[in-house]
Amino acid sequence: MELWFTEQQDEDVKFSIKVDRPILSTQSKYQRIDIFSSKEFGKVLVLDGCLMVTEKDEYIYHEMITHTALSVNPEIKSVLVIGGGDGGTVRELCKYHTIERIDLVEIDADVVKYSKEHLQFTACSLDDPRVSIYIEDGLPFVRKKTGEYDLIIVDSTDPFGPGESLFTKEFYGNCHNALTDDGILINQHESTFYKSYRDEMERTHRKIASIFEIAKVFQAHIPTYPSGHWLFGFASKKYHPINDFKPEMFKKTGIKTKYYNEWLHKGSFYLPNNVKECLELDE
Amino acid sequence: MELWFTEQQDEDVKFSIKVDRPILSTQSKYQRIDIFSSKEFGKVLVLDGCLMVTEKDEYIYHEMITHTALSVNPEIKSVLVIGGGDGGTVRELCKYHTIERIDLVEIDADVVKYSKEHLQFTACSLDDPRVSIYIEDGLPFVRKKTGEYDLIIVDSTDPFGPGESLFTKEFYGNCHNALTDDGILINQHESTFYKSYRDEMERTHRKIASIFEIAKVFQAHIPTYPSGHWLFGFASKKYHPINDFKPEMFKKTGIKTKYYNEWLHKGSFYLPNNVKECLELDE
Repeated sequence: MELWFTEQQDEDVKFSIKVDRPILSTQSKYQRIDIFSSKEFGKVLVLDGCLMVTEKDEYIYHEMITHTALSVNPEIKSVLVIGGGDGGTVRELCKYHTIERIDLVEIDADVVKYSKEHLQFTACSLDDPRVSIYIEDGLPFVRKKTGEYDLIIVDSTDPFGPGESLFTKEFYGNCHNALTDDGILINQHESTFYKSYRDEMERTHRKIASIFEIAKVFQAHIPTYPSGHWLFGFASKKYHPINDFKPEMFKKTGIKTKYYNEWLHKGSFYLPNNVKECLELDE
Repeated sequence: MELWFTEQQDEDVKFSIKVDRPILSTQSKYQRIDIFSSKEFGKVLVLDGCLMVTEKDEYIYHEMITHTALSVNPEIKSVLVIGGGDGGTVRELCKYHTIERIDLVEIDADVVKYSKEHLQFTACSLDDPRVSIYIEDGLPFVRKKTGEYDLIIVDSTDPFGPGESLFTKEFYGNCHNALTDDGILINQHESTFYKSYRDEMERTHRKIASIFEIAKVFQAHIPTYPSGHWLFGFASKKYHPINDFKPEMFKKTGIKTKYYNEWLHKGSFYLPNNVKECLELDE
């Protein structure tokens, strides 16, 4: 028997991976969770039919969502991760001995549970003593915080289903308030190639830019995400991602990366015209 | 009835596009040629089952394969394009009033014929008076040339089937010989994400680097190509793609681009570690 996982990336576009072995298919309180293994991609996590993590290329997403901020402000000590129950972002953060506190707020306990059980390649640092896991909705969690975090990473699913409230203006305002004066907000920012993603991406960027002093967008090649061209937001109260970039500090950490490097850091902010147009950037 | 085009991008990976209307399916002397239209991607050209051109994202490939070289040496006057019978590369070249001669060598007359008939968005400049079309194999064509071209663009299909000889060391040596002392060679360089492409990419780079004084690799996000992360080679006798880059000259041309810009030019050479490792680059 041949088994194929197919994601409908847009109305008229499908991406399919041959399944070697189905591992888990369950319905949590919030979403359908599937985990399978495949020869090409290793283990794969799928939430509500959307591919979230593959063992083969997850490092690209998780390196870009963490090291970009830490290389701009190496003094970051207190971090809030919203979403990201698979643990990949926390794994990258734990590589910094200088980070003292990591709060992970994930709405779905089952994502954490099954990631620990089946996806140790991402979940391996969830038991680090600096990590506290809160099974809660990110929106009310952030609302209660003031000036507590040097970095907030919004490692959300797409802007429908359980992740929806993490794309609202109220949420980004709360993040601004929850950050210290040195604060940086990183969020996964969808993509511009397919219309459904592009519209949300434009709206999200406008919301963040209306709240934060500095709001930039950076890119990565993520083969298993729709279009393979994925975007992240870098917003902050005072740090500029290029002008305040400290490549020598990143080198000093000795952290080994498989995708990120100090040249690529800069290049990731050099966006093509098709993306700049969507963002109405003229830089 | 629903019609879907599916490309097997690697053994365990498929990419599918919903077909709106099949336009042409024929067998030329060299390969199977299919053209169809789709709502998401416009018209699509497929050779031997491999997606070559879509109306939606072809500009990324064609802009990157031309403007990168012309922005390093704006004095380019004589250009040889090998492959590229769809005309997209020639279209971008014809935007430069300074270019005096463009020789297009395409092995398959039918690709040129059907592109002119159905793909005017790429083929629109094939009748430009500066363009000469030679229906020939690229390898013997280049063998006869010495010091004639300022730029050679290898706009080939993949390294199997009719494009195979365009990936040999003899061919790159002939290109070196066919170039002027100012000469630049640009080639489509496959990708590193899937093994079959990666092996060829590594071999190709080693061959070019053993012949040319300068051999670099640059990248673009091309959503409809396998992995979406596509690579190009920049080889030359004396020009360095960053140190000799002349952004002000490109601006002066007034050429409008939808992907390429002067920042992205630099960023496209800032490769991720996973690609640098394949190339054994330590820069």
